[in-house]
Amino acid sequence: MRNVKLIIEYDGTNYHGWQTQKNAKTVQDTIERAIKGLTGEMVELTASSRTDFGVHALGQVANFMTNSSIPGDRFSYALNRLLPDDIVIKDSQEVSLDFHARFRSKGKKYRYLIYNSRFPSAILRNRAYHVSYELDFESMQKAASYFPGTHDFSSFRASGSSVKTSVRTITEAVLERDDKIISFEISGNGFLYNMVRIIVGTLVDVGMGRIDADDIPKIIESLDRKRAGRTAPAEGLYLVEVYY
Amino acid sequence: MRNVKLIIEYDGTNYHGWQTQKNAKTVQDTIERAIKGLTGEMVELTASSRTDFGVHALGQVANFMTNSSIPGDRFSYALNRLLPDDIVIKDSQEVSLDFHARFRSKGKKYRYLIYNSRFPSAILRNRAYHVSYELDFESMQKAASYFPGTHDFSSFRASGSSVKTSVRTITEAVLERDDKIISFEISGNGFLYNMVRIIVGTLVDVGMGRIDADDIPKIIESLDRKRAGRTAPAEGLYLVEVYY
Repeated sequence: MRNVKLIIEYDGTNYHGWQTQKNAKTVQDTIERAIKGLTGEMVELTASSRTDFGVHALGQVANFMTNSSIPGDRFSYALNRLLPDDIVIKDSQEVSLDFHARFRSKGKKYRYLIYNSRFPSAILRNRAYHVSYELDFESMQKAASYFPGTHDFSSFRASGSSVKTSVRTITEAVLERDDKIISFEISGNGFLYNMVRIIVGTLVDVGMGRIDADDIPKIIESLDRKRAGRTAPAEGLYLVEVYY
Repeated sequence: MRNVKLIIEYDGTNYHGWQTQKNAKTVQDTIERAIKGLTGEMVELTASSRTDFGVHALGQVANFMTNSSIPGDRFSYALNRLLPDDIVIKDSQEVSLDFHARFRSKGKKYRYLIYNSRFPSAILRNRAYHVSYELDFESMQKAASYFPGTHDFSSFRASGSSVKTSVRTITEAVLERDDKIISFEISGNGFLYNMVRIIVGTLVDVGMGRIDADDIPKIIESLDRKRAGRTAPAEGLYLVEVYY
């Protein structure tokens, strides 16, 4: 038995998220089917996180156990020949049997793209969140600066989700602007369900003047989802990197 | 009778180019149909240039004559509601009757994206030319520096094409690299058929060591298409701006 780690890029537009579901095409299914085509085995792929419908990945990490004799670094080449072109295995390697893509993860980096322009972009459709209202970028930057640190992020968690603790440490939250594209990068030791999308939605509400940038600390302290802003849509979100 | 000018962004992936063809979906047809839906008129849209199958535009310019009373600047809003999301009218305005998107054009800017990495990109598929061979970027930059100026570009024209003169003036040819993405921007008073794609293909051949960067002046002088490099594929090409 061997353990193989994959680094995966995908365009989430045409998938009902990562995780296997009945009657819906998912990224996990599609890669498991390619592995079956290659090795004959029906493996179970474990990912660092289960991205939602429409969310993209530049560096999703997953692992699976196999009895195949294919060298670890050859899986990428072989699987890419079997996969559709919106899923690419960027790297593959054999890892120790105790590696687990989810439980061993020490942190992650996400990117979120906002396209801030009167009309949507044809090229960036399904790749960025279109906001037609002219956003106040400097206020958004100020708001973003309050997120790094260790906080209880209950205010930025989708209601109904349940995890043991909602305390997370954010190490980086940087907002940059290049003409009409606003890019937000956030790194931390873990993220609650929809946390990045709610943080971005809150930044957009700050940019529209609906939330004051300096209220962010109070919103975090309130532990109240209703105090934070909207949930930004899936299509702007990219899982960039997973740290081990 | 009024003359309306449109600035258009499109993802060319799903279109058989700009120009109307029998039994094939084109950008021109799709916009003309939207105008018919809006005004009831079957107009003829004239574009600055007829982009090929798979080529994108960030700032294609086209114009049409109409008897409609819709204000020029409202066409963008109204047409975007009727168009598919891979075509966006970024701006519309009424212009003088003698404006002609093609004949009045004084120049154009194109961008070409190369994705230089071992494996293709899921996110940039249909958006960039994937080259897995590790390109020598500095040699490519040197090669690019020979293009600005007024030259007979017969060596960089698709064979079989016929125009009165193949002399064109290139005002800018800049190559930049950001990690795996190589971006080439070229501006000039006009471009021969496939000229940008042959120039890029030649730069790629330089990057692979198949053509010497310092041979570019001789290749230009030869007026021989066979001396230049490959034709880079359509999916990396963007019509960025048209000058009047």
